[in-house]
Parts: sequence; C-alpha cells; structure tokens
Amino acid sequence: MLRMARRQIKQLLGPAIRQYRSGGHELSPAHWGLTVTALGHLACDSVSLASLREKWGSPLHVVLARRLRENASEFLAVNGLGRTRAEIFYSYKSNPVPGVLQLLHGLGIGAEVISEYELWLALKLGVPANRIVFNGPAKSTTAIHNAVAQDILLLNVNHREEIDVVAMVARALGKRPRVGVRVAASSGWSGQFGLSIGQGEAFAAIKQVHESGVLELTAIHCHVGGMLRSAQQVLGYVGEVLALADRVRNELGVELAILDFGGSLATPTVAGISEFDRRLSMAFQVPIPAPVPDAMISIREYVQCAVEKVEAHYAATARRCPRIFFEPGRAMTGNTQILITSVLSLNAQDPKPGWAILDAGINLAESARSEFHHILPASRMQGERTLRYRLAGPICSPGDVLSWSALLPELAIGDALAIMDAGAYFVPFSTSFSFPRPAIVMVDGSDVHLLRRAEIFEDIIALDRVEQPTNEKCQALQ
Amino acid sequence: MLRMARRQIKQLLGPAIRQYRSGGHELSPAHWGLTVTALGHLACDSVSLASLREKWGSPLHVVLARRLRENASEFLAVNGLGRTRAEIFYSYKSNPVPGVLQLLHGLGIGAEVISEYELWLALKLGVPANRIVFNGPAKSTTAIHNAVAQDILLLNVNHREEIDVVAMVARALGKRPRVGVRVAASSGWSGQFGLSIGQGEAFAAIKQVHESGVLELTAIHCHVGGMLRSAQQVLGYVGEVLALADRVRNELGVELAILDFGGSLATPTVAGISEFDRRLSMAFQVPIPAPVPDAMISIREYVQCAVEKVEAHYAATARRCPRIFFEPGRAMTGNTQILITSVLSLNAQDPKPGWAILDAGINLAESARSEFHHILPASRMQGERTLRYRLAGPICSPGDVLSWSALLPELAIGDALAIMDAGAYFVPFSTSFSFPRPAIVMVDGSDVHLLRRAEIFEDIIALDRVEQPTNEKCQALQ
Repeated sequence: MLRMARRQIKQLLGPAIRQYRSGGHELSPAHWGLTVTALGHLACDSVSLASLREKWGSPLHVVLARRLRENASEFLAVNGLGRTRAEIFYSYKSNPVPGVLQLLHGLGIGAEVISEYELWLALKLGVPANRIVFNGPAKSTTAIHNAVAQDILLLNVNHREEIDVVAMVARALGKRPRVGVRVAASSGWSGQFGLSIGQGEAFAAIKQVHESGVLELTAIHCHVGGMLRSAQQVLGYVGEVLALADRVRNELGVELAILDFGGSLATPTVAGISEFDRRLSMAFQVPIPAPVPDAMISIREYVQCAVEKVEAHYAATARRCPRIFFEPGRAMTGNTQILITSVLSLNAQDPKPGWAILDAGINLAESARSEFHHILPASRMQGERTLRYRLAGPICSPGDVLSWSALLPELAIGDALAIMDAGAYFVPFSTSFSFPRPAIVMVDGSDVHLLRRAEIFEDIIALDRVEQPTNEKCQALQ
Repeated sequence: MLRMARRQIKQLLGPAIRQYRSGGHELSPAHWGLTVTALGHLACDSVSLASLREKWGSPLHVVLARRLRENASEFLAVNGLGRTRAEIFYSYKSNPVPGVLQLLHGLGIGAEVISEYELWLALKLGVPANRIVFNGPAKSTTAIHNAVAQDILLLNVNHREEIDVVAMVARALGKRPRVGVRVAASSGWSGQFGLSIGQGEAFAAIKQVHESGVLELTAIHCHVGGMLRSAQQVLGYVGEVLALADRVRNELGVELAILDFGGSLATPTVAGISEFDRRLSMAFQVPIPAPVPDAMISIREYVQCAVEKVEAHYAATARRCPRIFFEPGRAMTGNTQILITSVLSLNAQDPKPGWAILDAGINLAESARSEFHHILPASRMQGERTLRYRLAGPICSPGDVLSWSALLPELAIGDALAIMDAGAYFVPFSTSFSFPRPAIVMVDGSDVHLLRRAEIFEDIIALDRVEQPTNEKCQALQ
C-alpha cells in the first residue's frame, strides 16, 4: 500500500524534477576518437566494438591504442618546448595490465608502484630500476629491501615511522637510497597519506631523513588525490611544495633534486556522484549530471602550468631547476579503455522501460557505484535515445546497479553497451564474483590483439584443493 | 588554518560525543567458540590463529570447521522434530570456496547457484542435480540450457521475460523443468529482483508459467534481502507467500510442491553502518554501534517459526504441506571464517594513536566499508583495549579504511588483528588490487589444512601476454 503510494508520487514528481535538473551532456563518440559504422555500431578505426564479442566473448575490455599513445604524448609534450623535462611515471595500480604498461614504457614512461608485487611486475616488464618510483602507506620490509637492493630511482616515505625502516634496510645493504617524503598540502586528501605541510610534520620528517646519515634526501612528493580539474588547484599545491622546498634549502642547506607532483588529474568525462544526486537518481530517475570536459584543463596545460611555475620560482632565485615528476593514473588510461557488456535480459516495469540486466556489473565496474560514466548503446548508435533504463549487473546484490537512469534507445537482448572510461580502477577492482573475468583486447588501427585472455571456470578454483566426490558423499545429498 | 581549527573542534567535541554514544559491545571470544592462549593469542581448539601466519603467510583466511558444522546442524535441527523437513541450499555466491562447500554438502546441504559458473561448480563438486536450485536475474541462455538439460531440482525465474526463455529451452530439449517464480513481498528488496505480490505481477507470472504448457509450475521463491533479525519479519513475508500459494491453488488449481524462503538471516555480530554513524565515526572516532547478538532470533528459531507457520496453515485446510526450502548465505558461513591481518606500519598522529596500516583492507574486506565487523587483537588479547586506532588497508585509496575507531591495546608492527565474521561476501568480493590474495586454511580440531593456496605474483598475470623486454625497449626508458 505504502509502496504503491510511493510509486505514484514518484511518477508524478519524476518528470518535473527531471526537467528542472537537466541531464548529462550527450557527447559525440568523436570525443573518444570513435566513429559509428553504417550498421550503427560504435567503432574504433573501423573496428566495430560490439562485433569483437563474437571472437573474444562478452563482457570484454577494449583498450584503444591510439588514444593511449595520444595521452602519453600529451604528457610528454612539454619536453619538446626546451623546458625542464617533465618525467612521467604511470601509476601501476590504476590499470595493471601488462600489455598497457608495456606500451607506455615503450614511449618512455616509467613505473610508479605501491607494493612488492608492483615492483616485481615493473622489473619483470623490463623497466630499469632508475625509472621506478615506490610510494604508498603499506611498504612491507621485504618490499623496501627489494627496492633499495635494486637501486630504484626514488622511494617516497609516507609517514615518519617508515624512515627508520628504510634506514635500517639501507644500513644492512650498505646502500644510500634516494628518499622523498610524501607531504599533504592544505587541499586534497590527508588521512593515512603523507605528512602535513601546514602543521610542520612534513618538515620534521624531511629533517629526519636528512639526519639519518644513510638516506639521500632527494624529493618532496605531493599527491593531492581526488580529481584535479583546474589550473588553480594545481598552482595552489605546487606553490606549497615550492615554499617547503625553499625552507628545506634555507634550514637544512639541501637543494632537492626532485619535486614529485603525483597524479590526480581527472578523466575529463568522469566525475564523482554526490550522495544527493545518487538519491535523486534512485528515486526519480533524475540523470546524474555529466561533467563538461572542456571546462577542465587538458593534460598538456596541467603539466605546463606546474612546470612553468617551478621554473619561474627557481629562475627568480637563480637556482637550478629540480627534476619534475608526475604520476598520472586516471588521466593517462581512464579514457583509453571501454568495457563492452551485453544485455542478458530485460525486466520491464512500470513505468517502462524498467530494468536491463547486463552481463557486467559492479563485479567489473566497481567505480561506477561512485562515479558517473557515460554508457553508449554500442550496437544501436543510430537509435534515438528516448528511454530511461535502470541498468543492473548480474550479481544478486541490490547494490549491483550501474545506472538508475541511462538514456538509451529501446534495447533488445544481446545488444551491446559501452561503459566508457573504463581504463582506471576497473581492472584492479574486478572480482570473479559468480562470473569469470573478461578478456582484454587492444584495438590498434585495424589490428586487434589479445592482451589478457578471459578467465575460464577452472581458473577461478585453480588454487583450491577440490576433493574428488565419492559415492558416499553424494548420498548424503540424496 | 581551517583544517587546524577543524581539528581542534574535533578534539574538543570528540570525547563528549563518544561518551554520549556508547561504543560497541566487546564480545568474549567464546562467542565465536574461540579461546585465548597463555601467550594472549586468539585460538581455535588450541590453535593460535596469529601463529598460522608463520606457515601460511599474512593475510590469511581461517575457516572454523567446528562452527561451520554447528551452524549447518542448527539449520537442519528442525528436521529431527518430526516436522516437515526443511531443506537447506547454501548460497554459493556468499563464500564460494570449494573446501567450505564440500564440507556443507557432506552434511546434506544442497547448492543455490546464480550463474553458469556456479552451476558448473556445484556439479563438479559432486552435488547431484536434484540438490541444486538456480536463481538470479542474470541467467544466460547457456546457463538455462545446462540447468534444464541436467534436470536440476528447481529453477526460479526472476522476472516475466525469463519465462519465455526457459520455455524455449525446455521445448528444444523436450524437457519439463520444475519452475518457481521469485516474488517480492511488501518488505525487503525489490528493484531488479522478483515480481511484486501486492501489485499482482507475481500472480500473473505464475499463471504464465502454468499456461506455458512445457514448464512444471512448482514453487514460489521469496528472498527478502537485507538482514533478517526477528521472527516478526520472517512471519510477515511467509504469510504473504502462503496467501499467494492459496490464490494459486484457488485460481489455477495447482498445489505448489515447494515454498522457497530464500536467505537473508543476519550474522548475529554483523550489522550495516548508517551514513550518520559512518560520518560521526570519521569525524570524531565515535565507535560504530555493534549489534546485540542475543537480541536476534537464532538459526533454529528462524527455521522453526517459518516451518511451523507453513505447517499450521496447511493443516488448517487439511492439505498436504509443501516442501520448504531455505537458502542461507551469511547465516551459514558468516561467523565461521576470520580474516587474519598484520600490522605493517604505524602512523602516529595527533591525537594518538593515529593510524595502523594493515596488510588487508578493502581489497579483501570490501564488506567492512558498509558493515560493522568486530576486530580483535589476535596476538595481544590480554592487553587492555584503551586506544582508538584508525585502521587503514594497504591500497593507496582514501576509501581503504576498515575502521575509524577500533578500540585496541597499543599495537606493534607485526601484531595480528582478526577481522571477525569474514565468511560471507569477503572472498567473492576480493581483488588482487596491488597485493596478491591470501591463502584459505581450515582449522578442524588440532588439524589445520590448506583449502586454497595464496596467490603468487605470477598468478596475477597468468592470463596475460607479456612481451619479452628487449634492449631497445629498455632504452626508451633510460
């Protein structure tokens, strides 16, 4: 009764609220460098993404090689201007797919790692130790030992207690590792990450590194977290880092060799979903507001504004400019990968169209719970987008919803949808929850090649001890 | 400046608010059937859980065999009373560990599956087809085909559109599968799950199954979702199912053979965290209120109250009582498994003690983001719990926090913590995010055996194509 009344209220209020809050911008596929085939399929370099399912199965991760090279070259572009070189280290955790990482390394991009596993992976993929930066709050002693033994480029300590561990390892190995200190600026994350500049914790830790006797004080590392969208945000935290570097020079007499500005640049077409918007969307199918890509700085502007500010600062005091590092994750790969999913079933409700049940949900797209991602009708691009579907994933959880209000043409079973910007935090957060994980292919011109094969059922229990079922055991079940 | 002011306000207000909202109940380890050794270690049947790390590594999932058998026997206990048999099907998705599943099957418990993979797994583990129930909103046509071809016990359709698919498969195979309809009662989840009783959708679908000509209308399936804690909740939805079964008999002339009451019984020591409590905890370290285990019905009471109500209903009209199914997930395994994690690093802050960084976080304990779980100092049980730690996991995400206010003794690096009630939705939601997944061992009396070995680094990229690094490629990185 109550539920019926509630439904009626929603049906009355929904259209009014939806009109008031205008929906997401419908972006052209060209925004991602994609086209539409004569059959109405979303395509990359004439390869229909929906058709890739025939060979590689569904769901399917598709890496767009051209976009990946474009993003990388934007990050490296500032180096062509005769300025201080911006050195780029890809954040492994964002999308740890060897085929993607090897493409980036081939372009001159190094590795930013946060665990013993990622350090191992970088070395296995042929990254020289002097192109590896090691970060994170949870470096095991073994991981620190491996990093110091290998003479990696830079190890950034996250909090004061780590300094003693690194010093102990350095003494044991007779090494003098290059060490930076992760600091927290006045904006952005803090919590478990880094030491506050404003409260003096950062300087105290830097001093401790310097006085350890066995560590080479080399860098300040500042990663604001969240999603950077404006030059103002960048200039703000870069300014705080410069002031701290000056204090280090003045009080400790050390000119830092490296300023490491971390990552955090947003993917232009992705934005966080506020609790308020999420509730409106659940209740009234109000679309989540899409970010306006042109309203944010480009990769090139981001690098350039930071580099210029650092250069100007050092030029003004006639000092030599330090090396400048960036550690992009989402900005490098976020919009270079697409998760293709298929409509498994339709569940029409009142008001129509109701639910479409997909073969990918939060098991593969966990980020879509908290971030807006465009979802395109990959096999029906010419249809008019007039219906508001609720899109559910396949796992039996009420939280397995990718969108409460996806504007799409009328769908049929088997249709492909493209969850855009799946190149950051989709693969590392993916699970084998009731369904095996998909293949990852790369489209490179007209060539399509497999980076990671799909899991098969046997893979999911490959590490398990399975007892051979006996007749007696089966009888217990009869 | 603002941040400093905010911190001072929190420090002033924190103690007052914490006093007002009293903390979680500190439960004795005996509640989980555990003891404490002379060395102050949490132990199961004299096996120190912290010490298991020496052989099997950290983190580590520990399955408590005795507890698992106890829970299973509670579910089956009502059968000893000469009543209608309650048939139990374990919800595979909750904790799909073959060693756990095989133990349950050995006790006479069947399989409730929601995907082609889980159906395959049940058959592989030796579960006879007539002990398998297939549910869920996302059954692929292949999965339905396999289920019908194997003559499984029951296939519950989730929404009307599935009926045609099952009928089509049945016709193609010349089979007459036993079909139930998932219905939504007036309480609990609805969304993408099931057809509303109140609005008549459920009856319409049941009629459609009956009139298909090729499907054997067999069951009503009602799974309320959420966390059932009281007999009143159980009796409420059971009553709605009985009324619907009567209508089916009266209008269609069909006496349903099975009433399937799904799962949803809570783990007594786990509860959802409200947004309000989460914010209070983040800001002021106010402990999340722990549920009072004795305030909820036991497994036995749960089964008994449903069975009695069904029996009484059918007895009153002198009809034969149908078979009664339950599909427990969390209530069966939730409190029979523990995730042991180690303190990797301490990050003291003001006010002390600040952060403890653990080797397990939301990568392995995703549920702890939204659910309260007790966390015990597994290697320091005799210490007085006087400090409020913030517990962070190892992945570089601000969301990787297991507790904002865990009351613990003073911790040292290497200490073990026990994240309790890790037997539901921990393993299936686990990822290899920057860190390999842990081993799973079972403690059975003084015997400890391995159910699943820990991932090694090579496992994580076993499905990837890795190019051999060449000299030229490495040069790009110099």
